[in-house]
Amino acid sequence: MADNLSKKMISCTVDFDRPGRQVGQFHVPFSGNDDAWGVVPVPIAVIANGKGPTVILEGGNHGDEYEGPIALGELIRDIDIEQVSGRLIVIPAINQPAVQAAQRNSPIDGLNLNRVFPGNALGTTTEQIAAFVHDVLFPLGDVFLDLHSGGSSLDILPSAVIEPGNTPQKHQDNMRAAMAFGAPVTVVIDNRGDPRTATASAARYGMTSVGTEMAGKGTVSIDALALCRHGIRNVLASVGAITRPVAASATPTRLCKLSPLAHVLAEDDGFLEPLHPLGTEVEAGQACARIHFLTQPQRRPVDLHYRASGIVYGRRQPGRVRPGNCVVVVASAYEGEPA
Amino acid sequence: MADNLSKKMISCTVDFDRPGRQVGQFHVPFSGNDDAWGVVPVPIAVIANGKGPTVILEGGNHGDEYEGPIALGELIRDIDIEQVSGRLIVIPAINQPAVQAAQRNSPIDGLNLNRVFPGNALGTTTEQIAAFVHDVLFPLGDVFLDLHSGGSSLDILPSAVIEPGNTPQKHQDNMRAAMAFGAPVTVVIDNRGDPRTATASAARYGMTSVGTEMAGKGTVSIDALALCRHGIRNVLASVGAITRPVAASATPTRLCKLSPLAHVLAEDDGFLEPLHPLGTEVEAGQACARIHFLTQPQRRPVDLHYRASGIVYGRRQPGRVRPGNCVVVVASAYEGEPA
Amino acid sequence: MADNLSKKMISCTVDFDRPGRQVGQFHVPFSGNDDAWGVVPVPIAVIANGKGPTVILEGGNHGDEYEGPIALGELIRDIDIEQVSGRLIVIPAINQPAVQAAQRNSPIDGLNLNRVFPGNALGTTTEQIAAFVHDVLFPLGDVFLDLHSGGSSLDILPSAVIEPGNTPQKHQDNMRAAMAFGAPVTVVIDNRGDPRTATASAARYGMTSVGTEMAGKGTVSIDALALCRHGIRNVLASVGAITRPVAASATPTRLCKLSPLAHVLAEDDGFLEPLHPLGTEVEAGQACARIHFLTQPQRRPVDLHYRASGIVYGRRQPGRVRPGNCVVVVASAYEGEPA
Amino acid sequence: MADNLSKKMISCTVDFDRPGRQVGQFHVPFSGNDDAWGVVPVPIAVIANGKGPTVILEGGNHGDEYEGPIALGELIRDIDIEQVSGRLIVIPAINQPAVQAAQRNSPIDGLNLNRVFPGNALGTTTEQIAAFVHDVLFPLGDVFLDLHSGGSSLDILPSAVIEPGNTPQKHQDNMRAAMAFGAPVTVVIDNRGDPRTATASAARYGMTSVGTEMAGKGTVSIDALALCRHGIRNVLASVGAITRPVAASATPTRLCKLSPLAHVLAEDDGFLEPLHPLGTEVEAGQACARIHFLTQPQRRPVDLHYRASGIVYGRRQPGRVRPGNCVVVVASAYEGEPA
Amino acid sequence: MADNLSKKMISCTVDFDRPGRQVGQFHVPFSGNDDAWGVVPVPIAVIANGKGPTVILEGGNHGDEYEGPIALGELIRDIDIEQVSGRLIVIPAINQPAVQAAQRNSPIDGLNLNRVFPGNALGTTTEQIAAFVHDVLFPLGDVFLDLHSGGSSLDILPSAVIEPGNTPQKHQDNMRAAMAFGAPVTVVIDNRGDPRTATASAARYGMTSVGTEMAGKGTVSIDALALCRHGIRNVLASVGAITRPVAASATPTRLCKLSPLAHVLAEDDGFLEPLHPLGTEVEAGQACARIHFLTQPQRRPVDLHYRASGIVYGRRQPGRVRPGNCVVVVASAYEGEPA
Amino acid sequence: MADNLSKKMISCTVDFDRPGRQVGQFHVPFSGNDDAWGVVPVPIAVIANGKGPTVILEGGNHGDEYEGPIALGELIRDIDIEQVSGRLIVIPAINQPAVQAAQRNSPIDGLNLNRVFPGNALGTTTEQIAAFVHDVLFPLGDVFLDLHSGGSSLDILPSAVIEPGNTPQKHQDNMRAAMAFGAPVTVVIDNRGDPRTATASAARYGMTSVGTEMAGKGTVSIDALALCRHGIRNVLASVGAITRPVAASATPTRLCKLSPLAHVLAEDDGFLEPLHPLGTEVEAGQACARIHFLTQPQRRPVDLHYRASGIVYGRRQPGRVRPGNCVVVVASAYEGEPA
Repeated sequence: MADNLSKKMISCTVDFDRPGRQVGQFHVPFSGNDDAWGVVPVPIAVIANGKGPTVILEGGNHGDEYEGPIALGELIRDIDIEQVSGRLIVIPAINQPAVQAAQRNSPIDGLNLNRVFPGNALGTTTEQIAAFVHDVLFPLGDVFLDLHSGGSSLDILPSAVIEPGNTPQKHQDNMRAAMAFGAPVTVVIDNRGDPRTATASAARYGMTSVGTEMAGKGTVSIDALALCRHGIRNVLASVGAITRPVAASATPTRLCKLSPLAHVLAEDDGFLEPLHPLGTEVEAGQACARIHFLTQPQRRPVDLHYRASGIVYGRRQPGRVRPGNCVVVVASAYEGEPA
Repeated sequence: MADNLSKKMISCTVDFDRPGRQVGQFHVPFSGNDDAWGVVPVPIAVIANGKGPTVILEGGNHGDEYEGPIALGELIRDIDIEQVSGRLIVIPAINQPAVQAAQRNSPIDGLNLNRVFPGNALGTTTEQIAAFVHDVLFPLGDVFLDLHSGGSSLDILPSAVIEPGNTPQKHQDNMRAAMAFGAPVTVVIDNRGDPRTATASAARYGMTSVGTEMAGKGTVSIDALALCRHGIRNVLASVGAITRPVAASATPTRLCKLSPLAHVLAEDDGFLEPLHPLGTEVEAGQACARIHFLTQPQRRPVDLHYRASGIVYGRRQPGRVRPGNCVVVVASAYEGEPA
Repeated sequence: MADNLSKKMISCTVDFDRPGRQVGQFHVPFSGNDDAWGVVPVPIAVIANGKGPTVILEGGNHGDEYEGPIALGELIRDIDIEQVSGRLIVIPAINQPAVQAAQRNSPIDGLNLNRVFPGNALGTTTEQIAAFVHDVLFPLGDVFLDLHSGGSSLDILPSAVIEPGNTPQKHQDNMRAAMAFGAPVTVVIDNRGDPRTATASAARYGMTSVGTEMAGKGTVSIDALALCRHGIRNVLASVGAITRPVAASATPTRLCKLSPLAHVLAEDDGFLEPLHPLGTEVEAGQACARIHFLTQPQRRPVDLHYRASGIVYGRRQPGRVRPGNCVVVVASAYEGEPA
Repeated sequence: MADNLSKKMISCTVDFDRPGRQVGQFHVPFSGNDDAWGVVPVPIAVIANGKGPTVILEGGNHGDEYEGPIALGELIRDIDIEQVSGRLIVIPAINQPAVQAAQRNSPIDGLNLNRVFPGNALGTTTEQIAAFVHDVLFPLGDVFLDLHSGGSSLDILPSAVIEPGNTPQKHQDNMRAAMAFGAPVTVVIDNRGDPRTATASAARYGMTSVGTEMAGKGTVSIDALALCRHGIRNVLASVGAITRPVAASATPTRLCKLSPLAHVLAEDDGFLEPLHPLGTEVEAGQACARIHFLTQPQRRPVDLHYRASGIVYGRRQPGRVRPGNCVVVVASAYEGEPA
Repeated sequence: MADNLSKKMISCTVDFDRPGRQVGQFHVPFSGNDDAWGVVPVPIAVIANGKGPTVILEGGNHGDEYEGPIALGELIRDIDIEQVSGRLIVIPAINQPAVQAAQRNSPIDGLNLNRVFPGNALGTTTEQIAAFVHDVLFPLGDVFLDLHSGGSSLDILPSAVIEPGNTPQKHQDNMRAAMAFGAPVTVVIDNRGDPRTATASAARYGMTSVGTEMAGKGTVSIDALALCRHGIRNVLASVGAITRPVAASATPTRLCKLSPLAHVLAEDDGFLEPLHPLGTEVEAGQACARIHFLTQPQRRPVDLHYRASGIVYGRRQPGRVRPGNCVVVVASAYEGEPA
Repeated sequence: MADNLSKKMISCTVDFDRPGRQVGQFHVPFSGNDDAWGVVPVPIAVIANGKGPTVILEGGNHGDEYEGPIALGELIRDIDIEQVSGRLIVIPAINQPAVQAAQRNSPIDGLNLNRVFPGNALGTTTEQIAAFVHDVLFPLGDVFLDLHSGGSSLDILPSAVIEPGNTPQKHQDNMRAAMAFGAPVTVVIDNRGDPRTATASAARYGMTSVGTEMAGKGTVSIDALALCRHGIRNVLASVGAITRPVAASATPTRLCKLSPLAHVLAEDDGFLEPLHPLGTEVEAGQACARIHFLTQPQRRPVDLHYRASGIVYGRRQPGRVRPGNCVVVVASAYEGEPA
């Protein structure tokens, strides 16, 4: 029934069955204090040509991650339709209210879209958006590509992210697609098994499912954007949805994982001095960051230490830090078989 | 009378006339909803030894600029008092409420401390802090060093900033002290003559007056912090307040200015893709940035262009941009005489 | 069990089985930051006399719609109890926190009461209010009248609204009761099948279910209030709950519907100039409104166009408009059989 | 000195001395948490041709009053420059931050631009805008036209407003210019002598100074906008700044004033039912409005009464009302000599 | 499955099976705008020695109730481990975000932790905390002690609170443990059967379950803290978890209950004058408080009256009062059998 | 001129020259987002009879201090006019917006009324209120009584407060009037010479000037209210404004002062355990309070110490404490001559 309600209550101005390039919106009904009979208008494009897989490309899952939405907008406007074989369903700003507000979570209901899958057609706006993706789009798709960046609070080494698959075959499919992205680093992240992310939900649904992380810091990275533009096309080519990839990256990707000890958390309320740039090789036990107490200059700063060995994969962007904040993330070597 | 009121109404736990190292606070009376008889406690240190100039070192003028406060905290705790000849008055987190909130302007009255000098002893908290600096500290000082970074909204090439002096002699003094900082770039900035900044106020008061800009992005830069640590000591040595500078920078500083055409402003509401890293040599007329419209993927992005030639000195950090926002700043060659 | 929980956890100071006029409250437990053991006190009246149907009259479902609550307050205070035959259960300000705040949705949990039916006895305040209506009041009722106005964001042609019924008989009942209201226009609205409104929930429960829309603009309309005062009594008379209607309207009501093309949505961020007063006959394709860009006077305004033919039924009240906002609504002719 | 500071600190992209049509901005420096080196960009146009007076036309003094800004935007874009004899300086959205926010007062500093004249070049943003108007524009002008509407909180009979002049001659000039506007009603309003409004400041400066009030309710009135479009041109023609007026209004304007008893204030916290449409002839002592207590239906409403006789000139728009709110305003006959 | 998800998604740094004293945290994943990959760090201690029952001691269920968290912190740091026989699982600040904010409900999702049990491992932060307590801790426990105070909005007679048990035996157990606390008053409170509190949930789970109320007023009571320190140890001794109680209270506890008429609610918007100190013996019908209208001095205050006879058990702390606020609570004699 | 502007711009419904009892308002013009032409209505009463001094009695200077406003409301309604000899001007809720909001400072402009004297007739609302008191009321008065309590953030020993007078005679007058209040403690407080309080401003104006502090905690104290009711009448009798005092207090008042070491400030961010009740005799150096770290139970609490000997005069009410908060205040013996 949920499927029917999402289809019924949310109108969509594109026709998924029509060939060619369409750019439209789906309209999530929204009855707020300032607009009783309005909608949240989420942009969506369908680019279909000939036979081939259906790929769902999503950007703007979090509203402060910009490389994916920029590259997807360019794909929508500029891709040569003759290159497509199959169907691209592109939603470059899926969490439209969060993108407009340039913040991770929705300003409407405070929810993180990537923590509410499979959504709820009768829930709040973020839950309704997730339900539309899950109930209306997933049934149409073979491959799901969810483009993230670090957002305002993190700086992350540009990388593709492998969603653990349900079956060895699916895991291989996910790994192969992720590695096709061509990032210097490819990382397996399992989020402690949290089933509520878009990629986890897509993987459960049976799709080949890939994510990315592209710098962050609440800004647009020149380098990460260049990688993202290439990577999207390379993934599309690897699954047979477009005919020509861009030139492959010269350096092979490094396969990593986030272990349970990857994250270092702050225990004090202060200001964060990082000690190493992203990509530095580090050892467990080594000092990774220092917390300063700027309004108490007589107090000595406190050091934090890596808990795993590997490379510095991500770190907190804002200088202000409070207990529980993630300060640094280390990616360790992945010992499994590459795809 | 203002002088008397600042001294009378604001108590201070350090004795400016005592030799040795003292770390204390001055207490700006604050009678808010949550604390009727409290104070804003601003940390202050006095480090005095022998004869020599009095240098006032200020950090945290804006609350989201961290390199200066960190380096000043280290100076307070670690400087060998035997090295000092004269007196250092160090206020590493002068806008204490803004530093605690990690935002540019004060959360108490919304004011920008660097736009309220010379302050008002009977005004709001930010005005009272400025008045204390102006009425109580300036009369004690010979040299004023105000350590800024780009803050949350800007990324700036680490640099010393020369406050235009009242007289050719003073201008020379300011320039010489700024160049001693040892930054790769030293920049003359006049803020269109705005008299309300701390350095402009100090210069009017007759002090040698120097500022800095140290990266920004709302985070702590490893490189800028290293520069800041050295630069402070080099400036102190150049004015004779400490006996030993750290080793001078190998590469000489590049002398620049911000012309009236230095700033490029956004005219659209969108998301900003920068086109060049900081430090790139650019020409007036060249495209400098692109505004994307993420929720309207059918709309082509709009290009912005440099208005001056020189090097990219600063740029907007947040991806979200609105009309009037400063997008990029170019530093042009300074044609005047170096110090 | 839900029924039992609403009855158990929510105390009510009126006795639904007692004849005569009682004015009291039901108390929804509320444990907030400012009142740990308090309640949300929702006013409720019971006016019972002799035999006849039980009619539930609801106002204040949205907190910024005033004609219904005013007219229901007058009914509670002034109706001659001898005129009643049956029982009136009147809840003039059902969403009490929203009415106090004079905004559409609840300030407590941000929810729209008209999007949470059938509610949840263990949920947040708005869900608990809906559950009380659904679990405790609906079992007592034969007829449900929900009095809406356009609210702060809309101006709507005063009208009765027919909730589509489950069965042809029920549909007829709803239509007959709605037409008895005596508004110049009576409209069938199906909300794309959204099951979460009070009237949809009441209709599913098997009650005769009628709604209204009375002007709006966040103010009280002199004309709509006059219509509302008469209309309530006429509906009560039509279902046999009071003995005397007020004089019927001379002009017969016009039967309309909202088609899927009724709504025109804004696509730009600007300021809205409407082109026609409510009630104007318009054609699909005709310009309906213009979006101006007040801070960019060099930019020409953009026109929007009707998508359906009919009469202008509603339009956006605030001049400020953003993409997705409902700008104008057209009511088309209803081709079905009148009641 | 203030004059010099406004000119120095605020850059302006139009040249007041150049003939022809220019549309640009003046840039008020703004150093906020989200934009350290940005500006508030206020749109301004100069349309100059031949000899004649300089007229300053201002809209958007309050950010939720739209007819003036719309009509001024059209004037900027569409006026035939050959019709101009003299110079029009048009600032259609003078309080740009308030216009963007669609609220009366500035979201930046909370100030009402029309209560801070003559401004302060070293103050907050709203004070700086006023200072630019006073220090830079007033010296260029002969006539000042300030276009207001009722805004979100009031509905006002469309009318021209006469600012009391310093001298009988000036008063005559103001009256003549106001009556040229061609509104059905022309009203003398003295604001109890408050010197801080734009028109009072302009009048003190020696300019012919006229205001308007155009409906309100936070929306755009079709009728008031039509009046405003004509009225602006008629005023320009009456002072000789354009060659052709539009056709004069058939019905002569009615000359009124607001007496000290014009305003009726609420004394209770409740919801407002108005009793008469705008324009109704009323007597002092007659009931003018009723306050209802929607969440206490057992409580009888309270009536308010007119304190002056005349016509209903304005009334409160929002239904929610609190003690001290202005509920209704009566315009009485003006007994002075018409112009 | 819920159990598994809480265990899987929430990591915990203490080992429940290890003897000795451990102080650590459990980490509830939190992905907010300011920290994408962070956690809410909830402090938890395990103190185990020899054989005996497992007692779960919880403080900070509401974030503005301080005596329990203070006394539990002392217990964690100071209890002689040799005194323990069994296991103490101590969570002194269970609603960590609310404790940091010093407010009743969570600043993250607005929820009251004591109204969301048994929680939801896939819900919002407060629901995830409750799920951890329910799914991970309850299976380990025999006895549950939940330490509340009146919080910011209430002042309550320090007392132990008996949770009604599922069976006569359990009821006896709860009553015996509550009476062991040694408060002057012990009260049976049933919350109208609300099943969502921690103690109700623990009782349903089969644990011996006891609560407390310790003064309040948003401050720390010297007397209530002294009682709390003793009471915790006495309860632990009574269930055999520690070997030595502190000296028993000389005066026996008075056994009371809250009847359905215990609470007096405000009906007016004003300022509250209480008429009797806590502990006063009062009669139903007697005046209990007066509502003043401070901004309308001509208006006479309104009296409220007790609805039950007994002793004044609690009363509203803030002077500002609105309709529905709980003004005073009377505890009546409990007629049942004492334990 | 300021005097004239306050009189001109602020209308007042009472006639200060008329004998008898009048209760009215003065209307401070307020043009806010929600009410363009409204006022802030401040209640004021004049009670005049026969010959004698004019006493200005003020309550609600801070909006969360209730005993004064309650007692002044009772005085207005209930005093036997025959008892009066002279004139009482009573403003029980002078900061009306703060009283309505039940917070110390004004919700309109964030200002503390007791830090803006002598005000500004052209400033913001709080400054305009102060200007009305200073420019319009002070010229009418002989004696000024300003009734404070501790407010939400402090609990203070009920006491009269002596404003230091300009001359020995005035100091004697102030002391005599303060001691007449009959509080157990009478305290000289000089606020470090801050000239911006109402009583300091009144004293400078030449009036006999007295303040009070009445408990606090954001609530109404039964005992302090009783004292306040008596004290007001005793002061009025002592200056000859009413004929009969109430019975004098049996215990003589204790004369104290606040020395520069009276206040103990917090230096940590935590939760406050006070160690002594108000009124306890304490010694400098003794521990006065303990800061606990509730979310870090492994961390030992930190003790604070008295800096002066005397009695505990006030202490912080909220348990949450941050650096700079006033934790405790000690009143020392006053060595000067009693009146």
